[in-house]
Amino acid sequence: METMIVSGRRLENCLYNKDMRKPIYLDYAASTPLDKGVLEAMMPYLRRHYGNPSSQHSFGQKARAAIEQAREQASRFLGCNADEVIFTSGATEANNLVMKGAIQNTKPHIVTTAIEHESVLEPCRSLEKEGIAEVTYVAPQKDGIVRAEDVMGAIKPNTVLVSVMYANSEIGTVQPVGEIGAAIQELRRNKKQAYPVFHSDAVQAANFLDCNTQTLQVDLLTLSSHKIYGPKGVGVLYKRNKMPLKAVLEGGGQEMGVRSGTENVAAIVGMGAALEALHNPRMLVTNIKIRQLRDKLIKGVLRRIPDSKLTGSAERRLANNAHFRFRGVEGRDVVVLLDQKGIAVSTGSACSEKTQEPSHVLLALGLSSRDALSAVRLSLGKPTRLEDIEKTIKVLAWSVASLRKAKV
Amino acid sequence: METMIVSGRRLENCLYNKDMRKPIYLDYAASTPLDKGVLEAMMPYLRRHYGNPSSQHSFGQKARAAIEQAREQASRFLGCNADEVIFTSGATEANNLVMKGAIQNTKPHIVTTAIEHESVLEPCRSLEKEGIAEVTYVAPQKDGIVRAEDVMGAIKPNTVLVSVMYANSEIGTVQPVGEIGAAIQELRRNKKQAYPVFHSDAVQAANFLDCNTQTLQVDLLTLSSHKIYGPKGVGVLYKRNKMPLKAVLEGGGQEMGVRSGTENVAAIVGMGAALEALHNPRMLVTNIKIRQLRDKLIKGVLRRIPDSKLTGSAERRLANNAHFRFRGVEGRDVVVLLDQKGIAVSTGSACSEKTQEPSHVLLALGLSSRDALSAVRLSLGKPTRLEDIEKTIKVLAWSVASLRKAKV
Repeated sequence: METMIVSGRRLENCLYNKDMRKPIYLDYAASTPLDKGVLEAMMPYLRRHYGNPSSQHSFGQKARAAIEQAREQASRFLGCNADEVIFTSGATEANNLVMKGAIQNTKPHIVTTAIEHESVLEPCRSLEKEGIAEVTYVAPQKDGIVRAEDVMGAIKPNTVLVSVMYANSEIGTVQPVGEIGAAIQELRRNKKQAYPVFHSDAVQAANFLDCNTQTLQVDLLTLSSHKIYGPKGVGVLYKRNKMPLKAVLEGGGQEMGVRSGTENVAAIVGMGAALEALHNPRMLVTNIKIRQLRDKLIKGVLRRIPDSKLTGSAERRLANNAHFRFRGVEGRDVVVLLDQKGIAVSTGSACSEKTQEPSHVLLALGLSSRDALSAVRLSLGKPTRLEDIEKTIKVLAWSVASLRKAKV
Repeated sequence: METMIVSGRRLENCLYNKDMRKPIYLDYAASTPLDKGVLEAMMPYLRRHYGNPSSQHSFGQKARAAIEQAREQASRFLGCNADEVIFTSGATEANNLVMKGAIQNTKPHIVTTAIEHESVLEPCRSLEKEGIAEVTYVAPQKDGIVRAEDVMGAIKPNTVLVSVMYANSEIGTVQPVGEIGAAIQELRRNKKQAYPVFHSDAVQAANFLDCNTQTLQVDLLTLSSHKIYGPKGVGVLYKRNKMPLKAVLEGGGQEMGVRSGTENVAAIVGMGAALEALHNPRMLVTNIKIRQLRDKLIKGVLRRIPDSKLTGSAERRLANNAHFRFRGVEGRDVVVLLDQKGIAVSTGSACSEKTQEPSHVLLALGLSSRDALSAVRLSLGKPTRLEDIEKTIKVLAWSVASLRKAKV
């Protein structure tokens, strides 16, 4: 069926592409382009300063200084001390470090949610399977919001770790992380105990929401560089001072013993620069622009495409996220058609796009498999322009209509 | 004492530096500069092709294709199939994946050597401490060579994994990996069992020695990009087809389920290009040049510096490695003095340089702590020139003499 449509529209496709100056990228939640300024900051560390940061000579010390500067930049973003910042190879490693490293006593209990990223859920499943820990997966409300009282209600006397993502990677819903953080702090004060510790995966949130670790009252927080216009291959784990954490990658004892391996200097420098750029007041203006464009996109799509629905809360969602279900079509067919028209969107999280299984996030909202498979996510970024949005609404409407017609 | 010498020699230092056009880097075993051609290959993936390789649209597919091309390049270097190549964030991660992931049954036994890199030894210690596995650390001979028969003799009925590094990172000695590989294969054939599997950390060897996995008869092999003129933050684990391996980083299921996390596309492209460059016939000529310079360095140092000794086998060592002990001085003082003269060398492995403890490798050779702390490693690379070596011999001789005089 897919092929038929494609060949049938080949000519139109070519004509259409002619007046498209550039492809339109609307998958910033999957990965962002590298900021020019960030790349510039990285280049000296790809060219001249190639020392191993653990070396005592000046080549090494030059690299070491760059890492420590990036650590300062990250700590300003997180409102924490520099020695509470751990650089990892990415958010997946940071999340694995939390889920596996924070488990210290025997047969502990973990509270998380049913809509976390796979890099939180998979370690949880392993810990359960191996009989190391017990896990409770708190379900979200229908609108994709996890209620703080549901999380707190799941805590048991042997709960050592609570992990709730700040904003969902698929449907963009924002969770009450600060509220949960405050409640956990109070619980610990009342019970005079150090547990449970509180972790939040802030990968999707970092572009738009306050990630001050004091305000949020988190003990652990995950960031990814390539979602904030920094390079791939680097992430940050914030770890509250002196909180014990067992290393997952062991060896030379880099990153204060928590994460061994020669530091990816250029990438770390890039992540520092990317976090610094998020601090720029211009970013606030950019985010207002992104939100306006996103609202235009949502309004346009819901108006022009019959039987279309926005997934998740309309208010408590990331400024750049639009997630729709189009009855009677498969999301992945829409992705393919749009790609042929030069518009990049996705069915959900890139990490799980290959599997073609219905998204665990959408199933957790109570949607049917069929409904979940009709999903299309569009996520905006700094370079997105009004004309991109106008064109996307048109092409999306045409694509959904074509797919529905082909089915009849 | 250190400071005294420095101030006393300040003037001479300045004069000396004047005629030094460029600092001399002789720490290629710690990290190598990024090849220009490798950086060029990476740039498009830092600039234009920023898609997430798991995305279905053309931005994602462009990134995916680049990764698969790099995988082909790596497989040509390793003489294996592309699907036996796993990209990781570096050698430390690859080694951790092996040591933790290959342990499948209960209370298994591991054979390794006392002179492995910390990224092999630390996971071993953890497995022992947690009661998960039992480990035998085979001692090397006095010349730093581990005998194949000693390794084979340590194997027990419940041995699941044998890990022997190809070339030592500190003293450059080359281990009989092919011989051990053949013996293990025969053992498995005779006993009709799949265990033990055989792993080799080839991080230091890759520039100089044949890493064909068929010839070596290894099941697992580790490579690091930043030791072969590629970027930091990426490594390769070769894993023989269908060999089961438990993931250490779990999540989106990238790298055939063995290593989750958004792929570091540009770095992977760089590693592929770096491995391809090692294949270039010019590399053979370069390595002969490096060996000749290194021999000149060893000869010069042993002749000009009294009470100096070469550590490890003179014949069975990497072409670029020179490792000395200078009686009566501390290696780290030599490193500091040389650095002030614009020459970068190290006391041993960069990863353990911070600790200022005597090297576990040197202690395993039977050296005293005092002797071990007198060590200086010089490692040559492609850009090393004859004049660098001549100057280094002079400055090294002057430094050791100064330090000895200051002590009297």
